[in-house]
Order: sequence, then C-alpha cells, then structure tokens
Amino acid sequence: CAVWYMIPNLYLAARMKTDSTAKIINCIRVLSIDAVEKANSGHPGTPMALAPVAFKLWDGFIRHNPSNPEWPARDRFVLSAGHASMLLYSVLHIFGYGVSIDDIKRFRRLGGKCAGHPEHGLIAGIETTTGPLGQGAATSVGMAAASRWLSQRFDRPGFEIAGYRVFSILSDGDMMEGITSEAASLAAHLGLDNLVWIYDDNNITIDGKTDISFSEDVSGRFAAYGWEVFSVPDANDLAAVESALNRAVESRRPALVRVKSRIGFGSPGKENTPEAHGAPLGPEEAGLAKKFYGFDGGDFYTPPEVEQHRRLVIEKGRKLEDEWNTLFARYSDSHPGLASEFRAICEGSVPDGWDSDLPVFEPGTPVATRTSSGRIMEHISAKIPWFVGGAADVADSTKTFIKSAGSFSAADGSGRNFHFGVREHSMAAFCNGLALCGLRPYASCYFVFSDYLKPALRLSALMRQPVVYAFTHDSIGVGEDGPTHQPVEHLASLRATPGLDVIRPADGNELRALWPLIISSRNPTALVLTRQNVPTLEGSGTGAEAGAYVVADCGGEPEIIIIATGSEVFPCVRAHGLLSQEGVRARVVSMPSWEIFDRQSRDYKNSVLPPEVTARLSVEAASTLGWERYTGAGERALSLGIDRFGESAPGGDVMKAFGFDEENIASLARRLVKK
Amino acid sequence: CAVWYMIPNLYLAARMKTDSTAKIINCIRVLSIDAVEKANSGHPGTPMALAPVAFKLWDGFIRHNPSNPEWPARDRFVLSAGHASMLLYSVLHIFGYGVSIDDIKRFRRLGGKCAGHPEHGLIAGIETTTGPLGQGAATSVGMAAASRWLSQRFDRPGFEIAGYRVFSILSDGDMMEGITSEAASLAAHLGLDNLVWIYDDNNITIDGKTDISFSEDVSGRFAAYGWEVFSVPDANDLAAVESALNRAVESRRPALVRVKSRIGFGSPGKENTPEAHGAPLGPEEAGLAKKFYGFDGGDFYTPPEVEQHRRLVIEKGRKLEDEWNTLFARYSDSHPGLASEFRAICEGSVPDGWDSDLPVFEPGTPVATRTSSGRIMEHISAKIPWFVGGAADVADSTKTFIKSAGSFSAADGSGRNFHFGVREHSMAAFCNGLALCGLRPYASCYFVFSDYLKPALRLSALMRQPVVYAFTHDSIGVGEDGPTHQPVEHLASLRATPGLDVIRPADGNELRALWPLIISSRNPTALVLTRQNVPTLEGSGTGAEAGAYVVADCGGEPEIIIIATGSEVFPCVRAHGLLSQEGVRARVVSMPSWEIFDRQSRDYKNSVLPPEVTARLSVEAASTLGWERYTGAGERALSLGIDRFGESAPGGDVMKAFGFDEENIASLARRLVKK
Repeated sequence: CAVWYMIPNLYLAARMKTDSTAKIINCIRVLSIDAVEKANSGHPGTPMALAPVAFKLWDGFIRHNPSNPEWPARDRFVLSAGHASMLLYSVLHIFGYGVSIDDIKRFRRLGGKCAGHPEHGLIAGIETTTGPLGQGAATSVGMAAASRWLSQRFDRPGFEIAGYRVFSILSDGDMMEGITSEAASLAAHLGLDNLVWIYDDNNITIDGKTDISFSEDVSGRFAAYGWEVFSVPDANDLAAVESALNRAVESRRPALVRVKSRIGFGSPGKENTPEAHGAPLGPEEAGLAKKFYGFDGGDFYTPPEVEQHRRLVIEKGRKLEDEWNTLFARYSDSHPGLASEFRAICEGSVPDGWDSDLPVFEPGTPVATRTSSGRIMEHISAKIPWFVGGAADVADSTKTFIKSAGSFSAADGSGRNFHFGVREHSMAAFCNGLALCGLRPYASCYFVFSDYLKPALRLSALMRQPVVYAFTHDSIGVGEDGPTHQPVEHLASLRATPGLDVIRPADGNELRALWPLIISSRNPTALVLTRQNVPTLEGSGTGAEAGAYVVADCGGEPEIIIIATGSEVFPCVRAHGLLSQEGVRARVVSMPSWEIFDRQSRDYKNSVLPPEVTARLSVEAASTLGWERYTGAGERALSLGIDRFGESAPGGDVMKAFGFDEENIASLARRLVKK
Repeated sequence: CAVWYMIPNLYLAARMKTDSTAKIINCIRVLSIDAVEKANSGHPGTPMALAPVAFKLWDGFIRHNPSNPEWPARDRFVLSAGHASMLLYSVLHIFGYGVSIDDIKRFRRLGGKCAGHPEHGLIAGIETTTGPLGQGAATSVGMAAASRWLSQRFDRPGFEIAGYRVFSILSDGDMMEGITSEAASLAAHLGLDNLVWIYDDNNITIDGKTDISFSEDVSGRFAAYGWEVFSVPDANDLAAVESALNRAVESRRPALVRVKSRIGFGSPGKENTPEAHGAPLGPEEAGLAKKFYGFDGGDFYTPPEVEQHRRLVIEKGRKLEDEWNTLFARYSDSHPGLASEFRAICEGSVPDGWDSDLPVFEPGTPVATRTSSGRIMEHISAKIPWFVGGAADVADSTKTFIKSAGSFSAADGSGRNFHFGVREHSMAAFCNGLALCGLRPYASCYFVFSDYLKPALRLSALMRQPVVYAFTHDSIGVGEDGPTHQPVEHLASLRATPGLDVIRPADGNELRALWPLIISSRNPTALVLTRQNVPTLEGSGTGAEAGAYVVADCGGEPEIIIIATGSEVFPCVRAHGLLSQEGVRARVVSMPSWEIFDRQSRDYKNSVLPPEVTARLSVEAASTLGWERYTGAGERALSLGIDRFGESAPGGDVMKAFGFDEENIASLARRLVKK
C-alpha cells in the first residue's frame, strides 16, 4: 500500500493530460469537502475517492437530460452508498440539475434540499431515497426489472422507446447487508443485463479497516450469483474506469464493476483512514487536500470549466431527448394504444373504469380475506396491465398469483407475476424500484414476516410510493404454525409508521370498498388478511371506505360500543346478537383502517363513536397498544387483545383460548356496561 | 431425474445390508408422516427426505447425553429449516429425549410440546426456536463463536472441557434469506471451524421448483465466503453422508455439506413435488409411502430396533458425560476459580457485587446517554467476564467498544468485542446464539436500524433470552443524517413486542438505576439512547427502577402531569420551572420504561399518576401511538410527539422545529390546564 502510494500518481498523470476534466472532477471533491465543512457534519471521504468514477459515469454512460429530469427513457442512477450524498449533489450541480451552490451551502440545514442522505422528491435526479445500507442496491434491481418489463411491453421493431439502464454505486456496507445478497441473487436469476453496480472497494468502514469484519471474496460471490465481474485497480484511472464500464454495459448479465479506491483521496493526513468517512476533515486538512488538487479558489469555488462542461451536457441531454421525442411521436402514430398506455404510466394514472365490476361477496359465504383480496387483485390485474408483483415464495398461500398473467423471468420480460424467492426484504425494495418507475406493484408474504421487510416498507412510506403490501396469515388465527408465525405486535408497528395506510378488512366487501382508495392513494398500503375463512357480513362494505363504520346497532343510544377489525368483527356481531337478546344496547363498529378513519371529519367520527358512550370494548387479535385512542383509558374501557406470544394449535382453538369467541366478548361487554 | 429414480435405489441397497438402521431411519419418516396426518397440518416432505442424514448426524457425530440434555459440553444441533419440526421431534424421540409418542400425537395441539415449529423451552434438545427462515442458521454461528470463546477462556492443557461443535440443517429458503448470507460471511471471517451446516438441496420451495427464483451457485458462493464445501449426491447414501460429515468436522474452516435430497422421498405420488412440502400426504399416499418403507405396523408404529438403539444411545451418552464429569472434577481441583466461573455461566448467574461502584453522574453534566451507557457497560464488562457483544460497524458511535477487552477474531477467540460488520440482522441472531450458550450478550446499532434486526429480536423475546440491545441515535435528535436515520415508529413497535423491556432513560443516573434490573432479567432489553448530550438531572435515578417516577413536583395536587422519556425529560423540567413561576402546579414524571412501570402495584402507579389529575401531557420525540394509556384520551389529554417523518438539520434545530422546547411544552401545558 505504501509503495502504491509512492509511485507517480495515475490521477496526477491524468490531470496533466486532460486538465479540464481533472478540474471538474476535483470540483466534485472540493464542493463535497466544503459542504461537509460548512455543515460541520457529513461524509467527505467517498466523494473524494469516487469523484472520477462518478464523473466518468455521468459524462460517458448515463443517458439523461438535465433539462427534463423526468424524461421517461433516462438511465437511472442510484447512490446506494447514500451517506456519500455530497457526491450526488456535487454531480447534479455540475451536470446542470436544480442544485445551486446556495443549495449546497445549505447541506444538512432545515428546509434545505441537500439532506444528509439523498431524499427522493427533494431534488429531481435523486431517483430513490438512500442511506439505510443495501436499500438502494435492492431498489435498483427493481428498476432494472421495470425497465425490462416496459421494454418488452412497449418496444416495437424500430421503436426502442421504453427501456433504460440502471447504475448504482455501492459501499462495503452495502455489500455486507443481507438485502444486497438477496437482491444480487435475484438480479442474476432474472438475467437483468441492464444493471451495473459499481462497488467502491475501499477497505474502510466506520469501525476501521474492513478486515475486522469483512474478508470474503466479493468477486467470487458475485460470480456465483451469476454476475459478470470487472475490476478497476484505481478509481483515479479514468481509462480503466471507462473500459470497465464499457464492458459492463455490454455484458449479457448484471455486471459488477469493482473499483479500488482510497477514501479521502487527496487528504494527506486522513486518506485511507476511517477518519475520512463520516466527519468533516477540519479546516487545515481541507486546505491541504485542496492544495493537493491544485485548487486555490475560495470555499465552494467552481472553475470556469464546470460551466463550459455544463453547457455541453445540457445540450447533449436536450438532443438525446429530442431524438427520443421524435421517435415517440412516430411511435404514437404507429401504436397509439401503446403510446397512450405508456403516457398513463409516466403520469401515474390508471385506466378509467378499472374499478367497475369489482367482485361482490355474498353475505354469509365464508371466504378468507386473503382469498377475497386475491380475487379482487385478479380483477385489477385484468384492468391495469401495469399492476404487477409477487410474493416471497408464498404466492400460492397468499393468493397473489395472477392466473391470467405470465411469470417474469430471464426468458420472458413480459410476465407480471414476480417470483421473489424467500427474500422478503429485497422483495419490498424491488417493489419500491418498480413503483419509482411508474408501475403499480404489490408485494406479499405472511404478516409476521413483515418484520423481515420493514426497512424497505419504511422507505415506501418515506418516498410516498404506492406499493401495496398484501400480508396474509394475520393473527393467531394462523393456528398450527405457532408463535413464530403468529403476528402480535405487527399491527401496532405498522400503524405507528408515518405515511402508511394499514387496512385489516372484516370481509371481501370491505376490501371491495377499500381497493379504490388504495389504488388512488400515493401512500403505500399494508393489507392485513386472514388465512382462515371469515363469514361475509350482512350489509358490510358500504362505509368501510371511511375507515370505520357501524356494522351492527341498536335502537336509541348504545350502552356500549364494540370496535373490532378483521376476523374479530364477526364474533363481535355474534356477541351483539347475544347482548340484544338480553336487552343490552350495543353497537359494533368495524374499523378496517385507523389511518383512514382518522382522516374523516370530526362529525363523522363522532357519529360512529359518540363521545357520550364511554363503555367501549376493542376486540382485535393483536397487541392492544394504541387502542385507548378509540376506547379511552378509563374504567369503562377495555381492549381484548394479545399482549403475549401465541400458541401452536388449530386456529379456532387458539382463538377461543385467547378469548375471541362471542360468549367471552359478550361477557366482557356486559361487565363494562355495568361499570 | 427419471433415470435416477429408476436405477436400483441406493437407499434400498443400504437397507438390505443394515436392516436395523434402515428401520430406525424409516421410523423417523413414518412418525413424521403420521404426526402430520393426525394434526392435519405440517411439513412431512423434509423429514422423509432427510431422515438418513439426521440419523447419521445424531448417531455418529453429535456428542450428547439424552439423560442430561443440558450437559454443557454437548454439541449443539439447530434445525434452521424449522418447518421440518417433525424431523427433530422424531429424532428426539428415537434418541431418548423427553418426547413420547403421546407428545408426537399431540403435534400442533393446544398445550402440546411438539409445536408447529420447534420452540426452545418446550422440549429439552431444542437448542433454539426456529421457523422464520435463516434465524437458526445465523443463531448457530453465535453458538459456534460462544463455543470457541468458552474453549479459549476455560480450556487448559489436558483439560478440553468447554468447547463443542455446532451443526445446523438449512433449507433452500434459509439459503435465500439475507440473514444467512450475512451470517455465513461472518462465520468464515471469524474462522469458526467448529461449525457445520448441512444444506438440504432439494430444488423445491413452496411455490414450486427453486428454478423459478433461485439459480445461483450456492457452493461457489460459500467458497467465496471462505467455507469448505462438501457434496453428497444422495441423502440416502449413508456412506457418502458419513464421509462428508467426517471431512466437514475435520475442516479447518466452517463447512457446508450440500446434500441432494428428494422431498417426500418414498411417496410415489408426491416425491419431489411442492405438494410434499407443507401439507399432509393424505391417508392413501401415506399408506403407499409406508409400504415403500416396508412398514406395516399401525399408525405411530415403532419397531423394536428403535428401543434397542435408544438404550445404546443413552448408555453412550451417559458414558460421554461421565468421562467429562471426571475430567471436570479434576479440572475443578486444578483450576478452582475457572471451574466456578464456568459453573456460574452454566447456571446463568453473575458474580456477586458486579453492580457495586456503578458510575455516578454529576447533576448538570451534559452526557449523551449512549456515552453514560457505554461507561456503565465498561464497568459491567470488568465485573462479568462473559458480558460480551458488539455493534454492526458502529461501535465507536454507539460507545459499545469495551476498551479493557480485546476483539474476538479468527486469530483470537478470547476477545469480548465482536465486530459484526454492517450486518444488523445476523448480529442479533448471533447474540441469541451467545445467550443460548450462557453468555450475556449485547448488540448495538442505530435505533432506526432496529428494523433490520427485528425478526431476531422477536426470537430473543419469544425464547426469553436476555440479549441487551443498545440502540443509540434514538430520535430526530440525531439531526443532520435526516429522516432515513431518525426513528419515529420504533418505540411503539418495540413496546408492542411481547416479552421485551424497552428502556429510554433521561440520563446516566436512570441508567445506573436500571442496569441491575436488566442484568437480573431473563427478558431481552432494548436500551434506547441519545446521540446528543443531555444534562444529568438533579435528583434523577432513584425511582427509575420502577419504570416511572416523579422528577419535578409541586405543592399540593398537581393541575397537570407531564410525562416524558429520554431526552425530552429535561425540557419538561425546564417547562415545569416556567409553569411554577406562573403558579401553575405541574408534576413531571420521567417514564423510562412502560413495561417496568406496568408491573408496579396499583398503589404505586396511582401515586405517580393520580387518577384525579386528568390534565396530562406526554412528551416524547416519537410516534404518539399508545400514549393514551397514560394520558387518557379525553379533551384534557395531549401527546406531543412525531407522527410524520423527521428532517435533516442539526439536532437542536429539528427538535425545536417539532416543538420539543420548553416554551412550547409550557404553552401546551397551560392550554390543557385551562380546559
């Protein structure tokens, strides 16, 4: 290493030859250093190391148009190493995107665009929110799949209009996260040859050299997944970077470009040390680095070459999109139907009338909500061709396999059923990628395993991507599989997650009422569905779209309100019957969604849950956490729930053992009425 | 494949030669089939496929003593493919453990021992709870590390008393889960040559053939991690199984034995199909399979060879432990101190006086709770040598690196700092493995990334393993890193998890009061700690061990109670000061732990939160979900919290922007008092 560092520096040699390129690359470095200094917080080391790679990638490979960052056919870039956000902000500034020096000066400040980690929606050009390691990489796989799906659906001879390539930069940390392994295995399985990952192999993590925790043969591992692997021995060697990227984009398999880099390159005291990773260099060291780069302008100095280069980039981008626009105009003439569908996807709209003729469920019929949801999804799939998704090896069980659509595979990019394998976490990130590319994805697994994918679901919510999570096997009602497979805390966990709508329907008709909301929403939705059959309720459905509504009532003011969700609504209705016979005036409210109910008017809420009725019982086979919001916390309020782990036994037995039968519910209600 | 099936069956050939072995192996199959039939639920296919492998493993390799399943030096077996639970129950029955035929008949029944998935604690011999895929595999890595740590600490020349080997059986599903990739990479990095994984390579998953989602070169992948890989082309070839296992246990690296098997082996209609995976064969097919095995006894028939074999196994096990006991008695004479420490570990006790001289924090001093916790952990580490753990590449940041202890590595098994790399999920499962082997582990990462490890944390709680999770960077107070790094819903999520104590202390003295509870508890604990400095409160600490206590009060009955946790307690105390000046009688309650407070007497709870004081304000920089339990849900109750995502900016700025400053708190309190 010492020797490597002593030999005439390839970077310096390159600088002699192509001075203006070197200046631009160094400008990326200097802006990053200065922004971190000014914020007194951030990660300068990776931008300093990877500036040449990012420059080469954006200058020579990524097809984009800064004047229209939303150009549908643009290549996608994902900075999975999101902590290196200044690398992206500097690049976006230099390449003509809407990031000014003033924006960069407000890096990590309240109300600024340049957040600590890149946030989709704050700046056009940030294709996905990154920072939690592995998420960007896994999302990029979904984007590459979306590109292939779009190509297959929309391209026609002479009209290659829909596809694009996807590039991502990954750190050592990304490589260590399990989600990345899942995603890499799946990317190769699906033959996503439009995907290029650049691995910043710098041997440094927060805690020190990677050799304290990471000594695997990353190249061998990727080769085993089925990737093609290319190596660049020095991130500063522009020719080597270019040659590897050229081979990577030509590869018929997903490609990994492994770039050896020196974190904090150019900082005499911190280069190649963990100190360069996540803290400002400090004024002195920053000055020395700038000196090394040959920069003697003030802070945030941008050499004139940057402006010249930006003009060229903008022109090139406009030309690229103009050509595409011309092609697309001809395409619209030849294939008007496809063109209008393509535009709908770009605009995020869905075909009119998609929700006409949604299935109706006969009162009394016992159907598991996983099954009724599956039937509705089958219908939606027929109406919205870009409604696509799959399950983590449980499609059969979660009823999410769309029989009328094929399977997406290496051989067939037109399939709409994705087989994710037992890879819940990367499935969710993959679906974020699909959604970010305009498709309407759903992801499915058992509800208890929502834990496995939660970090990616959180990003769906943070980015407001309308991924539908179809979680089945939603309570102790799962039965025999036992406590490892019986969710308890998961409803509370998802209800606490901002920006997510959680829906636990009592039956198929409630689902029917709620799906239009799901499709029209920009929020992700978690559907929480039963494994076991539940009877379709008399008069259910209408009203469910308000999040909560009365499903059984009494004459006059109720003495007690019983609030339930999902499979517990039916035994509550039965309990209501028992209570009526005894002359107890009870109301049963089905509350499929807290979030949706909370958005209703105060009047509506008071009409469903009149404040003067203080005896209230919630019934839900899950943690009781949070129910006091609707029951109150006083003596006359009670939550029947599960604040322990479940049991392995037939579902009906477990439900009864935990008290979710009509007799127990009626008895609890009686007690509350008398208080 | 068809050809393979037609050639003279290796298994049948083996049966001719060693009939009694074949009968025992087939008994494993038949018990598994019958149990699943009777339960009308379960997974027969893998027990049918792997019976020969399990038999060979338990008969020839696993050193154990059925008469004392808790013998400390026993080898550990982990059925990571937990859905194949009947394989384990049948084996435990046959090998003399406390599983009777009656127990097996009550497979998946309420109150039975033979749960749907193996549950640690229900039957001695189930070393860890499995079912959620990948968990067992990752836990086995922790067990192997524990074994090496114990060996290094306790073995002395002539006294190899402490170590053992760890075996695990993995399915295709285990192989696809990211946690397994993380764990496998770490196992090789740590050079755990006492670890053997048997990969059941059957090409079938729930959704069909693995080729719909899984086509990587698993052997190549493991070789790239640094494992030695052995292949067995047919699970029924006992000689090949034996030879591969022999080479695996001799390997100087972790070893993967890849066994090709045929799911549902012996079922003429379902063998090698997904139908054999997760449902009963049905009476007819079950009968045909039994016929194929040459079994003509009734249901749950056990041939006499099983009893003969069991007697031999029991005798062999007794002898093994007797030898060890003799050795250990001599060891106790030569090394009495070590022997008594070893016994303490086996008993789960900790050295007397470990909690004397815990650090005291001076009122007024600003210290981040991550730092005060780190100081206390440093102290505990000096007193309890088997208090070990580490962080997911953020030890420096979470203050969990114990300076007085070395690092655990391939070269040094005595280190007590584990460097997990950026692998949160496998870190938590690893710590479950350490705890199951008697060590007192802690695992650390940023709180927002508790999402990454939640499935393993859930198992800590389900198994009641006292893993301490030290989560730092606990709120929007994280600041600049922004919403991807700012927890919001995580407190609610963990509070809803049964069997977990969540502790969010206001300062070091509360931690000091609470750590003795943490160490004496069998529950796992989540410590939720600040990144930013918080002032040490006047008079804090004493009382914190009750979960909630009064930190600032007024004369007479309070007009309002302000309840806060963690970093929000201090601004509430300041707001209390403002309110006092105006003559508003306020009480401030610090509530570091809901769970611990909920366990107190009603009298104590009423003394802290008198029911007659209805104006209540909770203040916590997190989702408000659940706070109504303590504030009530009426007009005079309010929760100041965060029901959206955070912002990237300096922590103090963000806290103020979200209203967590004394002025805003006082103003909200004033409003409630007037209501």
